Formats: sequence, structure tokens, C-alpha cells
Amino acid sequence: MPAAGLERQIERYLHEYIPLSAAMGVRVESATVERVQLSAPLAPNVNHNETVFGGSAAALATLAAWTLLHLRLEQAGCDARLVIQRSSMEYERPIPGDFEAICRFCDEAAWGRFRATLERRARARLRLTAYLAREGHRVASFEGDFVAFRRTAAK
Amino acid sequence: MPAAGLERQIERYLHEYIPLSAAMGVRVESATVERVQLSAPLAPNVNHNETVFGGSAAALATLAAWTLLHLRLEQAGCDARLVIQRSSMEYERPIPGDFEAICRFCDEAAWGRFRATLERRARARLRLTAYLAREGHRVASFEGDFVAFRRTAAK
Repeated sequence: MPAAGLERQIERYLHEYIPLSAAMGVRVESATVERVQLSAPLAPNVNHNETVFGGSAAALATLAAWTLLHLRLEQAGCDARLVIQRSSMEYERPIPGDFEAICRFCDEAAWGRFRATLERRARARLRLTAYLAREGHRVASFEGDFVAFRRTAAK
Repeated sequence: MPAAGLERQIERYLHEYIPLSAAMGVRVESATVERVQLSAPLAPNVNHNETVFGGSAAALATLAAWTLLHLRLEQAGCDARLVIQRSSMEYERPIPGDFEAICRFCDEAAWGRFRATLERRARARLRLTAYLAREGHRVASFEGDFVAFRRTAAK
């Protein structure tokens, strides 16, 4: 299935503004406000054990979560600067090949609270989870707290 | 101060076997079994806010801790495969330029227990902490649990 224009547009944005994503060979497989799926090949992300380097795994998960939150803020017409405040990774299995990061977010109540806080205090925090998969199997878990700083009021 | 041969040797190892470290421009500033200091420039690690991408920050801290444990195992004559099991990062301040990761480990009692377990059970876990610094100021903290799998008995 050919990727849609939005996926290529986000991919170009990531490669341009976060050059490590280009060095990692990150591709945007799908991107909606409810689910972002990124992929990366083994070769540029390999380690001395011929599996994925932990730093690459953490970076791909971070990018997936960041992309989802970025898309949500954009859809809400909110110009905010996003930063990561805290993150954790559980490396459940070695990853001996190409891998994916999937971030899902469907908690509209939490999103509503986040948006309301961002409007009221000009900053708000949201926790996102993501996981890494290899050939359909979960291989690592990510949790990250992101903080958005509102630059302008919502449209 | 010109870096010693050991530092360049480790740097070549990292760049060759963990190619993302070369893409990140990682340099080994100093490396002993008690303290490893790595550095990386902003440019290849930048994000959309013109500060260091969280994934790069996590990767440099992971590399510093991994390098220290690798050196300790090598010094102990222990041929072991090292993997990261869990990690966490606290991003305390944005990093607007070149940055460093420092991993210190001086807990010889913990090291003794780790070595004894590795000999007895052929696998053992050790927790290491590291921090990131920018111009001498701490900007992020890392904690990682590494597991070593012994391949051969100690010399």
C-alpha cells in the first residue's frame, strides 16, 4: 500500500528537523491522531550483538510518541513547543532486524484535560505509551511524559 | 589535552559496531573503569527546537554506561555479552549545544556481587547511572539496568 501524502510530509519534517531520524532511516508507515507507526531498518541501528542498539530503540519510540502529540496539537490548531520531560524503556527481547514503533492514543478524556490545562496555564503534560515490534511481536515498551508550552492561543 | 590511545580505540569500536554513534559524532573524552565521559556535537543531534533530540540524549547516556561496563568486564577478563534491560531518562533542562555523558561507577561491593553472580549463574544484572552535562551543568539523568551473559569462564 503506497503511503499517503501526510506520511511522506511528516517523514520529510522529521528528516529535516531531527536529522538523527534520517541517519536512522526512519520511515513514517502511518500517522493519524490515534495511531502513529514508524519503522527503521537494522543496518544503521545495529549494535555489537547484531541486534538493535538500545539508543536507537528508545529514539524510535520517542519519535512515534512525539509525532502523535505533534499531530494532535496541529489538528487542534494549537501552536505549542513540545519537549520530553521523562521517559522509560523496557527492553523485552533482542531485536535482530528491522523494527517498528507504534504509539496509540485514544483517551479523549485525558486529551480534553490536557487541552484545557494548556489553554489555562499555557503549559500541560501528557503521558504517552508506545511499543516496539519486530515481525508483529512486541519487543520493547516505552512510556514518556511530554510537556507542551503554548506559543499562541488556539485558533 | 590529546586523548590517549585507549580512548581512540574505544571510539573506533563504537563507530564500527554501533554506527549510530558515528552518525551522532560521539567522541570518547576519557574512559576508565571508574568513569567514562563521552561527548557529542549539537548539529547531528538537533531537534525542531534547536536543542538536543531526546533520543540522542538517551543514546549518549546509554553508550557511556555500556562503555564503562564493557571496560570493567574486559579488565576482569570476562567474555560476556551485554544487553540493556531497562532504562529511564529525566530530561531536566533543554540542551542548546554540544553535550556530554558521564558515567561513574565506584561501588566495588556491588561489582563484586555482580562478578560472583556472573560466574555462578552465567548471567548477572547491574544498575548504572549516568548524567548529561552541558558546559559543566547537569541537564539530564539516566539510569539503566544491564544484563551480562557469560560466554566463557573468567581467565
